[in-house]
Amino acid sequence: HPPPGPAGDPLWGYFSSVAGQDGQITADELQTALTNSGMAAYPRPGAQFSLETCRLMISMLDADRSGTMGFEEFRQLYQALEMWKTTFQGIDADRSGAVERGELKSAMTKFGYNLSDAAIDVMMRRYGKHQAHQITFDDFVALAVRVRALTERFRQRDTQGTGHAAFYYDDFIQVAMSC
Amino acid sequence: HPPPGPAGDPLWGYFSSVAGQDGQITADELQTALTNSGMAAYPRPGAQFSLETCRLMISMLDADRSGTMGFEEFRQLYQALEMWKTTFQGIDADRSGAVERGELKSAMTKFGYNLSDAAIDVMMRRYGKHQAHQITFDDFVALAVRVRALTERFRQRDTQGTGHAAFYYDDFIQVAMSC
Repeated sequence: HPPPGPAGDPLWGYFSSVAGQDGQITADELQTALTNSGMAAYPRPGAQFSLETCRLMISMLDADRSGTMGFEEFRQLYQALEMWKTTFQGIDADRSGAVERGELKSAMTKFGYNLSDAAIDVMMRRYGKHQAHQITFDDFVALAVRVRALTERFRQRDTQGTGHAAFYYDDFIQVAMSC
Repeated sequence: HPPPGPAGDPLWGYFSSVAGQDGQITADELQTALTNSGMAAYPRPGAQFSLETCRLMISMLDADRSGTMGFEEFRQLYQALEMWKTTFQGIDADRSGAVERGELKSAMTKFGYNLSDAAIDVMMRRYGKHQAHQITFDDFVALAVRVRALTERFRQRDTQGTGHAAFYYDDFIQVAMSC
């Protein structure tokens, strides 16, 4: 059987075909890789993630603060996208490509985030289309990426698990602006 | 002379020509109003703010959480935009429509935000174009709107002015997601 690592990994093909010599990809290369892999293709075959959502994905997972993404980060992102897409397709019963408020709340609960109705309302106002009533797949992914990253950053500062964390101003700006 | 209030205010014309019966505007109506007023016209006469930046402006100033903007909020936003535009034009010496890292830092200092180099780096990675080296006018405005709103939310929780504030998880998600 194939050796472990890139050579045995189907994702390597999508990644390496867009990565430069440095083995890193930028936001527009990520957009191409996710289109080529079929991941972005919902609800229509030719659909793409927006460049804005791709920039967010890079920014969120950019541990080394390079502004680009390496293969290991791409693989982790891809696994998360598979889960988010399966969940989105499961709740978008009519395959319209958009879900509503109650469905967004169910999805967040399913992902393990304990969020109030007020927090869900903020998300609907920020990402909702059509009078803030519908969340498209692209915006759902942007939302999921942000909630995941913000929750991780919060937990790093809530070391006692009290649900309460303190931030210095500059740190707060850095966390909020990078997510 | 004209009475105080909308009838005597040139901004009223830009606002009322796009507002519906309810006296509120949505993100795409805000985009139109800011284009008609000439505010968005930099560096080229026909330039527009992106819909994403307009959504941010609405979300940030939306005190009544309606997803729309009333005239008083529009007037406050317009005043802030005038200051940001004057500053941006002042630092964009060659009128290229984009500024660099050092210029962004000067602008933030001028606006009264005491931010570390690390925070400026986060902004460049999140908003920079052309290998994260340049900030366009549209992105500069998005950035200024976010920093202003985040700083205001932080100060509301840092009532002693210690530069240190505590957040509950749900509140943290609401603040970060709405900005």
